[in-house]
This record gives sequence, structure tokens and C-alpha cells, in this order.
Amino acid sequence: MSIHREEAILFARSHIEEYISSLKKLVEIPSISTLPENQGDVQRAATELAYQMETLGLQNVQVMPTQRHPVVYGEDLSAGPDKPVVLIYGHYDVQPVDPLELWETPPFEPQVKGDFLVGRGTSDMKGQIAATLAAYHALRSTHGMPVNVKFIVEGEEEIGSPHLRNFVENHRQLLASDISLNPDAGMLAPHLPTIVYALRGLAFFELLVYGPSHDLHSGVFGGVIHNPAQVLCEVIAGLHDKNGTVTLPGFYDRVRPLPDWEKKELARLPLESEVLLEQTGVPALWGEAEFNFAERIGARPTLEVNGLYSGFTGQGSKTIIPSYAMAKISCRLVPDQNPHEVHEQLLHHLKNVMPSTVRWELKYLGGGNPCMTDIRHPANQALAAALETAWGTPPIYKREGGSVPVIGDFKEILGIETVLTGFGLPDDRIHSPNEHLHLPTWKKGIEALIHFFFNLAEQEGLKH
Amino acid sequence: MSIHREEAILFARSHIEEYISSLKKLVEIPSISTLPENQGDVQRAATELAYQMETLGLQNVQVMPTQRHPVVYGEDLSAGPDKPVVLIYGHYDVQPVDPLELWETPPFEPQVKGDFLVGRGTSDMKGQIAATLAAYHALRSTHGMPVNVKFIVEGEEEIGSPHLRNFVENHRQLLASDISLNPDAGMLAPHLPTIVYALRGLAFFELLVYGPSHDLHSGVFGGVIHNPAQVLCEVIAGLHDKNGTVTLPGFYDRVRPLPDWEKKELARLPLESEVLLEQTGVPALWGEAEFNFAERIGARPTLEVNGLYSGFTGQGSKTIIPSYAMAKISCRLVPDQNPHEVHEQLLHHLKNVMPSTVRWELKYLGGGNPCMTDIRHPANQALAAALETAWGTPPIYKREGGSVPVIGDFKEILGIETVLTGFGLPDDRIHSPNEHLHLPTWKKGIEALIHFFFNLAEQEGLKH
Repeated sequence: MSIHREEAILFARSHIEEYISSLKKLVEIPSISTLPENQGDVQRAATELAYQMETLGLQNVQVMPTQRHPVVYGEDLSAGPDKPVVLIYGHYDVQPVDPLELWETPPFEPQVKGDFLVGRGTSDMKGQIAATLAAYHALRSTHGMPVNVKFIVEGEEEIGSPHLRNFVENHRQLLASDISLNPDAGMLAPHLPTIVYALRGLAFFELLVYGPSHDLHSGVFGGVIHNPAQVLCEVIAGLHDKNGTVTLPGFYDRVRPLPDWEKKELARLPLESEVLLEQTGVPALWGEAEFNFAERIGARPTLEVNGLYSGFTGQGSKTIIPSYAMAKISCRLVPDQNPHEVHEQLLHHLKNVMPSTVRWELKYLGGGNPCMTDIRHPANQALAAALETAWGTPPIYKREGGSVPVIGDFKEILGIETVLTGFGLPDDRIHSPNEHLHLPTWKKGIEALIHFFFNLAEQEGLKH
Repeated sequence: MSIHREEAILFARSHIEEYISSLKKLVEIPSISTLPENQGDVQRAATELAYQMETLGLQNVQVMPTQRHPVVYGEDLSAGPDKPVVLIYGHYDVQPVDPLELWETPPFEPQVKGDFLVGRGTSDMKGQIAATLAAYHALRSTHGMPVNVKFIVEGEEEIGSPHLRNFVENHRQLLASDISLNPDAGMLAPHLPTIVYALRGLAFFELLVYGPSHDLHSGVFGGVIHNPAQVLCEVIAGLHDKNGTVTLPGFYDRVRPLPDWEKKELARLPLESEVLLEQTGVPALWGEAEFNFAERIGARPTLEVNGLYSGFTGQGSKTIIPSYAMAKISCRLVPDQNPHEVHEQLLHHLKNVMPSTVRWELKYLGGGNPCMTDIRHPANQALAAALETAWGTPPIYKREGGSVPVIGDFKEILGIETVLTGFGLPDDRIHSPNEHLHLPTWKKGIEALIHFFFNLAEQEGLKH
């Protein structure tokens, strides 16, 4: 290892407690983007992040407003015009915390418990932002940044980034870069560094079925009224066949078939049923039998019910025919599906199957395209080498089941590919109670990032 | 009309404001039997009712505890051992009020608005209890009760009367009687007095489907996990065919076929689609096409979803695979179905259809047998004559869609039939926001009850 790398690594190690302390300050702010009552907290998180970025040495740091939650920007162009510009993406917003009663420690009072930092957003993804900032600080504080960096950290990822595309379109100059780094993609296990080369897209909906104008007595009217909760169940039931395939007409038309090299690479992933059963607690796994687990999660689209509500749900009973029923539905998409087409498919299907005994409404709540980057791209090669240096083993290439809508927008508007990695683990319980970050893995991640920036500076073919 | 009848009628009319005032006092107490937090209020309502009964002149008035909500008892045996004993049934508990924001006036601040007294329980059924007490008071205050009366007013009807059967079994002597009057059955329209000769039974359940041990990220795990909300929807969807018939194996085995005289009588009911559409606000009616509306509501069993809950139901989105899904399900039953058999049928069916990818649980929350009384029974004849006197038109005979579980218990344990009528109307919005009692109809009902008691005293064949 060169002396510059070694010094940066040692600097990072000796400042690790500061980096954890700053991360905790960010985690403490309940930046829940989906809840209107947390609007002020989201703003505070942006301000805190901007402050930390400035303190670490980034320049031109701005909290830039959008129609809803602001974007935080900062740059360091000290590497000079001959070096690549890396656009580092992140989001400082987090998921809601309910059910609150299942948290063992308060979600916004981050605590170190053993090897973990526990709290909402520690893994998804304030911890990942903190890792990139730590790598930056360590480099800048020793021999300087080997590449140029621009940070773009948004506050709406958990709600589908509704205003980010617009923001990127309006700031092409500011965001002009050669490659993007997205550390939101996680890894498979503490000993298995991962490069994600594809992400699923997303489309989310709310479906409402309206029956009577008010809840009815099920004795007085039962037998002549089509129960909207029953209709909702029947419609949802009709969206999958018994093999787990989505029955929406046209849904799979644009799904790109899996080439052999991908099948081989995906087969390397250690996604075994025992591990999945242990991580999830289900009695048995499920899904399209003709695809293995890695293919089902990474290369196949899904349609999922995220929520159901109708009628009386309290303790005991209330014998009503409910006036309405609601489902939250979201689809994970793969190349080359797109959310607006899926919206049309769902709308068209519902028009065909909904009975005339109810009224109904489908609301499109947001979405993003799926995306894919060549694993032989120079930046992916730089990242692969960095991960191998930090972990002593080459990375696994993976298609990610989750979504980050902005990746496709970066490709389309800025013309740049994205390399995806991250230091979150499958059992970090993101989106659930008791989310945590595995600190030993996170620390290795900081070191891998340091190596990545050095590798990028030495790589050919990156400058636009 | 005899002088005794006339005096009692006039007395009732001149004391009507007192009776309304006492009814309001009872309505003010939020005796919601299903909610544990209202336990104290239910107790208070029992105490208030007992106080009112004593004040009106009833003897041996007691608030008698059960495992949960007490039974209020009172009697007047002044008519003597040669006269029939009428066991008057009622319930002082009420339905929950949610959604509270839809009430135009507070549910427990009863107000007279035009011809209506508005508040939870005014129609179902504190107003009906008040009518029987008013008739009693008017008779007792003029020439005395022509028959003996025993009042049994429970506090658990809205939750399926779980402890009443036991109570009746333990108090056979106290409750020994010749006939029961149940004024909880309502009437078809203000000009159509009604005798209900059959009630549907009831069985209610809670079905829980458990998937992962905690909510999962739908990107990280979507495709390999069987979504419990989806399973719930599929199972519920499978419970009806497209004709509206319940598919539960064995469900209809014990349903007594409809004889011609009943078909003719039910065809007299003015249950037209325009009226139903207006009362309910649905875009179109539904149900088993080979039965008319009155048959579907009165003579056919149903299976209804009363509530659904799973995952995230707040504003916006949360892309999870929920850890569990819940449905509240209840069945209305007709002779000769019984709730325990239906429980077995549902359990058996679920064991056959539930996939091994989830765990599940069916909870039986309560139920009661359906029941039927001969329309030519002397007490029904006495009631028919009384209704004709008060309304100037003979009553319509109806099979009621709703349930009062205790009727079958009275038959089985005390050996008595029940005559069912009532002065609630279909648009009283029972079980919904803005419940109200139509006072002009209610006042006629008091007078009909006065005539009923006189008729009973003159009827042959009632003493056991």
C-alpha cells in the first residue's frame, strides 16, 4: 500500500469516535419524510448535515430548497480538472418508526449496543453518508483528495424522490460529473463486500374501494350489499396466480430476459433458504419456482400489498359492512419496465375486474425506473479492487431488490453511470423497529472508500 | 277502547317529556361494551337504569354482576298468579362511535332535532327500553298492570352476550315466565308496524395471518416471501363465489328451505331497490340472484368482512412486506345453522386452503343461534292486535336480518317463545354515526305496548 493510502487509513481509524459522534447527532433528528408533522425535523437534519459537511472541509455547501424537502450540496474540487469528478449521492431522510412499541431503545436516541449502533437511519442511510464523509475527511486531512467530489444528499428518498428529478434538471452545471457513487445498496454479509450492478424500480399506489355511504349494520343490510372489503380482497387476490406470478396483463412484457453470464453470477450469491428463513422468521419461503432466490429478488418484478385497512379493527367486534376499504400496493420493477406503464396496466386491469356494485379509485403515489450498470465499467473495476483490498476477498456482483429512483435520472439527465455499494447488512432491520448499523463492517467500509477514491484517480477512461 | 286502556294511554301522553328526559339521562352514559376503557361507564349505565326502574315502581330491582358487564333486573308481580308473566328483554350497552368526526352532534350528548332524538343508543336500544318502561309506568300509575312483568336488561348484547346464557341458566327460578317480549327488532317504516318472527344468528371471528417476524423491506426480500396481507386477501376472496354464495363447505347444509307461505309473506315486504339504494348509498345492489331482497336479508345466511388491517395505513407510503394481516369476519345465520358448527366449518376450510408459507390463527369471538316463533302463537296474536290498534293497520310479518343471541337461549333454558317488535326504523343509522330515534313512531310504540299488555291478559293459552 502506498504511503498516502496508509496515512489516510490511519487518520480515519484515529478519528473514528468523532465520526460516530457526528453520525449520532444526525440520527437524533427524526427526519421522517413521509409524515407532514415532521417537516421541521427534516429541515433540521438538512441543516445539521450541511454544518457537518462544512466543518469537515467541503466547499460551496448549500441547503437548497425544493417544493418539499431540501437537497444538501457540497463539493471539493481541489484535485483539479484532470481528475474525475465523483457525484456522491445520499439521502438524509428516514422511514417512519411504527410500531413504536416494538423498539427496545428509542428510535431517535442512537446507542451503541455491542457491535451495533441502534436507531432509525443508522443503516439506511445516515451511516452510509457518514462513511463517505469520514473517507473524505481522512483523505483531505492527509495528502488531499485524489479525485474531485460533489455531494448531493436529498431528503425525499423514502417517499420516492418526487422533486429530485426536477432538481437535477435545474442544476445540470452544478452537478456535472463523470461518475456517481451511491453507497445505499448494502452488502450480503460482513465478510462479503458487494457491488450492486442493478436496482429494481418502484411504483406505488393506493387503491380505495367505496361501498355504502356509511358503515352499515350487517344484520339489517347483509345479503344485498357488496362489501367493499370483500371486493378489495377479491381484486387483490386476482393479482397473483398460485405460482406467485403477477397476473397483471402486460406486466412482464418489457422484462429483459436473463443472459447466461448473469444467471451464473447470480448463482454465486450465498442466498440460502436457511439464512433467509432465519432473517425473516417465516415458516417457509415462496415465489416463482422457476427462478432461484437471487433471481426472484434481483431480476424479477413484484407486486406487494404494503397495507390494508377497512372497517372496525379495535378490540372485540363490530358487526358492520364497512363503507370503504383501502390497500397500499407497490411494485418493484426490473429493466426495462417503467412505473407509468405499470400504472396504466393496473388501471386498465382494475377497470376490467371491478364490479359495478362499488366505486373505486387508484392513486399513483410515486415511482422510479429500474437501472443497470456494466460490471466492467472502469469505476466498477476501481470499486471492486478497493473492496478486495479492504476485505481480502473479491466482491460479489449482485442485482439489488431495492430501489433508488434517482439512479435512472442521473443517467438520463447528467449522462453518468452509478456504482453502487454500501455497508449495510440484510439483518440491519431497515424499515423496521430496532434498525442498527454493524460498526466493524462500517469501519471497513470507510477504508474501502479511501481505496476507491485512490483507485479512481489511477483508472483510465473515466473523464468525460 | 276500554276506559282502563284510555286512561293509561292518556297518562303516557301527559308524561312523555319525563320519559324523554329519563331516556336522555341513559343515553348520556357511553356504555360501549366492546371497549375495555368504557368498563366504568357500562357499570354506571346499569346503575342509572336500575335507579330509573325503581323510581318507576318496579320491585326487587338489582344490578347483578357477571364475569364482565352486569345484568339489571326488576319485576312487578302485582297482576297475580293467574296472569301471564312477561319477561321483557333489553340491552343497555351500545356500539362504538367511530368514526367520531362524522357525528354532527356529540354521540353522548343526546339532542332533539326536529322529530328525532340524536345520539348513540337512542334507537338501539335505550329508546326501546324507555318505551317499555313508559308503558309499564303508565299502566301501573292508572289501573295497575294487567299482566306480570320481569325485566332483564343486559350489558353485552353488542359483543354477543358472552355471559348471558350462563346467567339465565343460573337464575331459572328468578326468570321463570310464560313469554318473552323483545323490543329490539325494529319496524320497516313509520306507517308499517312489524312483527319479527325470525332472527338471524351470529358467529364472529378474528382471522390472523402471520408472515415474517417483523415488517420487511419489500425490496430486500420481495419475491421470496409470501406476503401475509396477500394470503389474507386470497383466503377471504375464496369465501364467496361470483354469485355471492358462501363457498364454505357445509355452510348451507342445515339451512331450512323456505315454505310457500313464507315466500308469500316475505314478498309482501316493501323492500324495493330504490329504497335500499337510497338508504345505503351504494351504486348498485348485490347478492344471490335467485332470492329476492327480503329473502336475502331475512332467510339467507351471510359471511361478512367487518374489518381489515395490515402493515402501513398512514399518509403516503411505506414499502414493507407486513409482518401480519388481520380480518374481522362475522356470519349471520338462519335456522337451523348454529355458530359452533360454522366455526368448525371455517376452521376446517382454512386448514385446507392456508399455505404452509404462513402461520395463522382463527379466534372465535362469540355467537348465537338463529331463531323463529310461530306467527299464530297467542302472544304474537296479542301483539298483532295491539299494533293494529295503535297504527290502524295490521302488522307486516318479517324475518329479521339482525341477531339477538339470547332469544334461542330463552327458548332452550326457560322454555319460552319470544315475540319481537320494536320502534326503530331502517334509517336510524344504528351502528353508524348520527344514530337517531324517530319520536312520533316511538310514542305510538308506547301506546301499542300498553294495548299489548292488556291483550295478553285477555288471551287464552299463555299460562304455562
